[in-house]
Amino acid sequence: MKQPGSPDRDPSLPAQAWNRGIQSGGPPLRERLERLIRLASQLPSMPHLEEHNTLESPLSPSLKAAVMAIGGAEDKVGERSILKTFFNRAGAADARVAIIPSASREPEIIGQIYHQIFEEMGAKSIDILDIRNRRESEDPRMQERLEDCTGAFMTGGDQLRLCALIAETPLALQIQKRVRSGQLVLAGTSAGAAVMGYNMISGGASGEPPNRGLVDLGTGLGIIPEVIVDQHFHNRNRMARLMSAVAAFPERIGIGIDEDTCAVFEGDGTLQVVGKGTVTVVDPGEVSYNSRAQVGEQDPLSICNLKVHILSQGGRYSLYKRAVLQQII
Amino acid sequence: MKQPGSPDRDPSLPAQAWNRGIQSGGPPLRERLERLIRLASQLPSMPHLEEHNTLESPLSPSLKAAVMAIGGAEDKVGERSILKTFFNRAGAADARVAIIPSASREPEIIGQIYHQIFEEMGAKSIDILDIRNRRESEDPRMQERLEDCTGAFMTGGDQLRLCALIAETPLALQIQKRVRSGQLVLAGTSAGAAVMGYNMISGGASGEPPNRGLVDLGTGLGIIPEVIVDQHFHNRNRMARLMSAVAAFPERIGIGIDEDTCAVFEGDGTLQVVGKGTVTVVDPGEVSYNSRAQVGEQDPLSICNLKVHILSQGGRYSLYKRAVLQQII
Repeated sequence: MKQPGSPDRDPSLPAQAWNRGIQSGGPPLRERLERLIRLASQLPSMPHLEEHNTLESPLSPSLKAAVMAIGGAEDKVGERSILKTFFNRAGAADARVAIIPSASREPEIIGQIYHQIFEEMGAKSIDILDIRNRRESEDPRMQERLEDCTGAFMTGGDQLRLCALIAETPLALQIQKRVRSGQLVLAGTSAGAAVMGYNMISGGASGEPPNRGLVDLGTGLGIIPEVIVDQHFHNRNRMARLMSAVAAFPERIGIGIDEDTCAVFEGDGTLQVVGKGTVTVVDPGEVSYNSRAQVGEQDPLSICNLKVHILSQGGRYSLYKRAVLQQII
Repeated sequence: MKQPGSPDRDPSLPAQAWNRGIQSGGPPLRERLERLIRLASQLPSMPHLEEHNTLESPLSPSLKAAVMAIGGAEDKVGERSILKTFFNRAGAADARVAIIPSASREPEIIGQIYHQIFEEMGAKSIDILDIRNRRESEDPRMQERLEDCTGAFMTGGDQLRLCALIAETPLALQIQKRVRSGQLVLAGTSAGAAVMGYNMISGGASGEPPNRGLVDLGTGLGIIPEVIVDQHFHNRNRMARLMSAVAAFPERIGIGIDEDTCAVFEGDGTLQVVGKGTVTVVDPGEVSYNSRAQVGEQDPLSICNLKVHILSQGGRYSLYKRAVLQQII
């Protein structure tokens, strides 16, 4: 069943085709923007595409429930502090959890792993939304299954696959709306974290200076449109790729999240660090020079006046103020 | 022959023993500092150890000739733009070049490679100072060989080995003095670049968040005491280790140099980028919080308000002003 305003795209198209639009020139980009703007006009909670400087403006619109972006490889067998934080924020013994394993090519296995974890913790109910094609995300029965949930957990895998299956579907819009109205705590790990921004890092490399070709960029779910999330961050040496992404979208804030580490975004525009590693904030808000528009695909970039914060457990940062909120140990 | 004020250390001691002093507590550190301060009082051009904030102060003292810190793997067979820059700055057809291959465990081979390159370019004279033990650095005949040179080139290898062989010897002090009086252009690649600062990165790892254990720190030649140099920078994913080093010495400026890239330091306190990659400046001058003193060896660090500049070919940065000097393409 086709939803009004939903893309005309064949859901069987490979994820690459779906995501390359925003980066390439010509009609596909224009068409895509027009389609997004049409969608945005229908749904007040979509990111405002025409706004390019969020330095002074608050999150648009505010979250009410927490969003947890996890850098992958979170502890699943020990103290499980990050997964427990999600469980508790979703209501603890009253938590009704939906697991979305669709980023993974092994959704059954990964779904069962998280099912067992949340069952052991004592969740009231657990439902695995094993979405394998886009039509399932458009099926009203899927929305019914999500409607009563207090927490949704997106697993790791491939962020392009996840977006190809759910981005801009009624299910994705329902998730967004329920998070923003304070009804649903949303967590995502690895690929599930990468999709949180509007601009998304879909792939890339390391071992090179920042350059346009070092990072593949696509479009995420836009849950927190202000940020570009990278994950497995210091573990996989992704600083140069996040800087390359931020050079491409200097109105965003780069958020690099280490393994077994979580950036918990709150409704007041702050993020707080939970876990063993660090969250790195790459803020281009005061960048005085960025050569990206003048250089070739493989040329090294020049970027002057990036502000970088390395935050560990307990560290807090305000997306509104673009500042670290308190000293942490 | 023992020089007045020179260390009493057995030159056969392994490099590790020589370099760990500054990081460990107790008598060795105090003794070492006292010895350095004695030396400094004898030689006005030594770095002032008691100064911990160089934010407002100029380079102490100024260079007169250029110092070229090369990130390793510079082009030796194609355009050789970096090596040609060195050759030209050293006087071109009038260049009298000294090659110091002592960082390498294959000094003969590496010495011959550079000998051939500078011979092909047309240097007036080339001398390989193949120093294999500390006494050779203290031998007045070695100083005589350096006395007429217009350029000195330190090869790659192990920076600990290079410092163990020449740091604080009359030869090293002669190099420093002649660079500062404008008589000698000094270049170093890879390990030869790492020794340029007073605080030196002697080893470390990648793939982790910044932490105290990620970087091994020692003492370099102090040619440009204000900086901590890292090399093979983005190529070997060394951002986190440079940030860890800068957290240890927040009065310094971190300079990360990519392969086939050179930071040319001039007498006016500026550096300019030559080559294919980038020079990354990590400036902790406005850091508002640094958890290094409170955390364990392997704990992730928190560092707030680092300023980072990525500069490519032609980019210029002032160590005095702590600012990028002009826009570059």
